[in-house]
Parts: sequence; structure tokens; C-alpha cells
Amino acid sequence: MGKTEVVVLGWQLSMFSAKVRIALAEKGIDYEYKEEEIPHNKSPLLLKLNPIYKKVPVLIHNERHVCESKIIVEYIDESWKGKSQLLPSDPYLKSRARFWADYTDKIYEFGMKIIKCSKGEEMEKAGQEFLGCLKVLEGQLGEKPYFMGEAFGYVDIAFISYYSHIYTYETLGNFSLKNDCPKLFGLVTKCLQRESVSRVLTDPNMIYEATIMFRKSLNLED
Amino acid sequence: MGKTEVVVLGWQLSMFSAKVRIALAEKGIDYEYKEEEIPHNKSPLLLKLNPIYKKVPVLIHNERHVCESKIIVEYIDESWKGKSQLLPSDPYLKSRARFWADYTDKIYEFGMKIIKCSKGEEMEKAGQEFLGCLKVLEGQLGEKPYFMGEAFGYVDIAFISYYSHIYTYETLGNFSLKNDCPKLFGLVTKCLQRESVSRVLTDPNMIYEATIMFRKSLNLED
Repeated sequence: MGKTEVVVLGWQLSMFSAKVRIALAEKGIDYEYKEEEIPHNKSPLLLKLNPIYKKVPVLIHNERHVCESKIIVEYIDESWKGKSQLLPSDPYLKSRARFWADYTDKIYEFGMKIIKCSKGEEMEKAGQEFLGCLKVLEGQLGEKPYFMGEAFGYVDIAFISYYSHIYTYETLGNFSLKNDCPKLFGLVTKCLQRESVSRVLTDPNMIYEATIMFRKSLNLED
Repeated sequence: MGKTEVVVLGWQLSMFSAKVRIALAEKGIDYEYKEEEIPHNKSPLLLKLNPIYKKVPVLIHNERHVCESKIIVEYIDESWKGKSQLLPSDPYLKSRARFWADYTDKIYEFGMKIIKCSKGEEMEKAGQEFLGCLKVLEGQLGEKPYFMGEAFGYVDIAFISYYSHIYTYETLGNFSLKNDCPKLFGLVTKCLQRESVSRVLTDPNMIYEATIMFRKSLNLED
């Protein structure tokens, strides 16, 4: 076998792709990034490697591939143990990290509600539901520097990968991460100082513009 | 600290509780089982230990607790390493096991569609969708004795914990696990020979009757 080959099939607007790329950057792993055209022109390689979900991200590592972002991040952490441990070794602390990383999926769930709902009362409700989810995370973070304590890790990656989308959610849903969740905002500020994060995340305005175009296609915006 | 205390808060009709109990039985771990009254009379302990989801199962191990069935099973596997390894050690094989265990959640998702839909065309469609999901698992199992090869493990536990419910799904959804998915049926037969499985699983008729009562409450049955 020749040199280690690492490839990521991703999409710039995908928070799940960001998650994997931040993990690779934390580990200092060089990789080739292949941008997919989602949703209408997925590559034959993506369809071949992820026939079940047909979704990004896919990680290719030598001859093997792994699908599903959280599974990929655990794979990365277990395969490259040397640098920047992302999950705790202790089974109990690991279970806590998994629980809270899973919880961040609610950001996607409630975010999709915001994106797909009409303005007015429905949007107001969706915004408040979303904020409720952030408040749970705010409470869990508490006074700790990072979700699991002193070190940046798995839960922080899961959360910060949504950052570029939160501007869209707060603008449409009429709340403010900075004012309503100051502790989470402090975490965001710390995370954005990491090159692993700032180099990967997409410009929030780009997400916002793409979302508004999508909402126009659904007649939810003028 | 005194002797190891293991407690499971569960519910007899929950496939997620079954998953945890099968894992504990495979490891030969004694535990106290506390049946919850779901959904209307959850214990203060359940509400205290799982304030986010308020759901069973919860595993209590000494002074700590773990929520969410797949997270619990990984915790069990990592905490009691001595006997019956449930997940592979190799990161790639582990990622495959996680992928397919996650996929079995579709059984729940498509099963809920069957349970909540009206008879006739809608039910026919839901039954076929469900069968499509089983066929994917049938293809993945192939000619192997168990999902990940020669040994009973994490994916098999995830799948077999749904067994008691499948009778309900196939009866309502008008398909037959035995005839339509003979390989999965073979796996079921093998799994049911394990005491860890047969002692834990609820009588399929009990699930069926509870489901019909639920459907009557929704005016979906006469």
C-alpha cells in the first residue's frame, strides 16, 4: 500500500461535512476535499459509496469508506489516536459526550422547521422552539470552557459545525444567540479562534442567501 | 463503595429497553429491573435521570446513569470488557457496526407509520416501505451467520430487539418476514435460541393487542 489516502466527499452548505473536516483538521490530517453538487448532481462516487442515504459526508481512508458524520468523527478519533483526542477514554464520560453530540442533532431538526415554515405566528413558534433547544445546550455548557470540560472535543465539534447556519435561524426565527445564550456565544467565540474551525466553516451570509432562495422556491418569501 | 449496583428503568413494550437488557444478559450482568408506567405515570426517578427525553431505558450503574439505548449498549460493552464483546475493536469494523445499528432505527420509524396509518391504500404503502427497509437489512446480512460475521453482537442486538414488534407490523402491513426475508428470518431463529434474547423479549401477541388498542383510540380500527 502506498501513502495514506484520505478523501472527503462534502458540500459547502452541509454542517455534517463541516463536522468531519473540523475533526480531520484537529488531528492534523491532510486530505483531498471533493465538493459534491447537492441535491441534483451527486457524483457517481457518492452514490456508489453511500447507496443507503446518498448523502455527504463520506470519508474515504485508503480503500475503505465511512458514512454518517458522527460515525466518521468517532472513526477518525479511533484511527488517529496520537493527536487531539476528541472523545474521552472513560466509558461514562464517553457516553455523556455521545449523548450531547446526539442532542445537537436537534439544531438540525428545529432549524429545518424554521426554514420550512411560513412567517408570522408559525415562525414565531419555530424560533422559540429552536431557542429552547439552544437553552438546553447553554445549561449543559454552564461555566465550563467546553462542553466536556477543559478541552475542545466531540460535542464542541458537533455544536460549532452548526454555527454558519445559526445566523439564518436567528434572523428568520427572531432571536439572538449572543443575547439569549451568552455562554454558548462565548463558546462560539473560542471555537472560531481555532484554525481547524475558522478555515472550514462557510460564510453565514452564504447559508442565509441559499436559504432565502430555497424559501422563495416554496413561496415562503416574497 | 459497596457492591456494584446495576438498575434498568424500562418498559416491557419498548424495543429500546429490550436492547439494553439483551446486552446486559450477554455480558452476564445481574441487574435490578424497574418497570415504568409509560406514558402516563413515569416515575420521579425516570424524570430526574432523563429530564431531556423523559424516556426509557435508563441504565444506572453505581452512582451514575446513562440514557439512550445505543449509547447504553456501547457503555455496557466498554465497561464490562471481559465477556461477549459486542462491538468490534477495529475502528473500521466498529464504524460499520454503528452504521447498521443506526439503520435499524428505521424499523421504528417505518413501524410507527404502519401503526398510525389508516387501512387500505395508505397501509399498503406503509407495509411496502417497511418491507423495503427489511430488504436492505436482508441484503446486508447476506449469507453471514450474524450481521458482522461469525459472532452475535451490537447490530444483531439492535435488530432482534424489534422482533416482538415485527409480528404487529407484518400483520397490519400485509407482508411476511418469513417468506419475504428468509435470511433475516433465519437470523431471528438463531437469535431466539439465545437465552439472553428469549428471556427478555415480550410476547408478540401482547405488542399486537396493545397496538390494536392504540389504533382504536385513534379510530383506525373498528
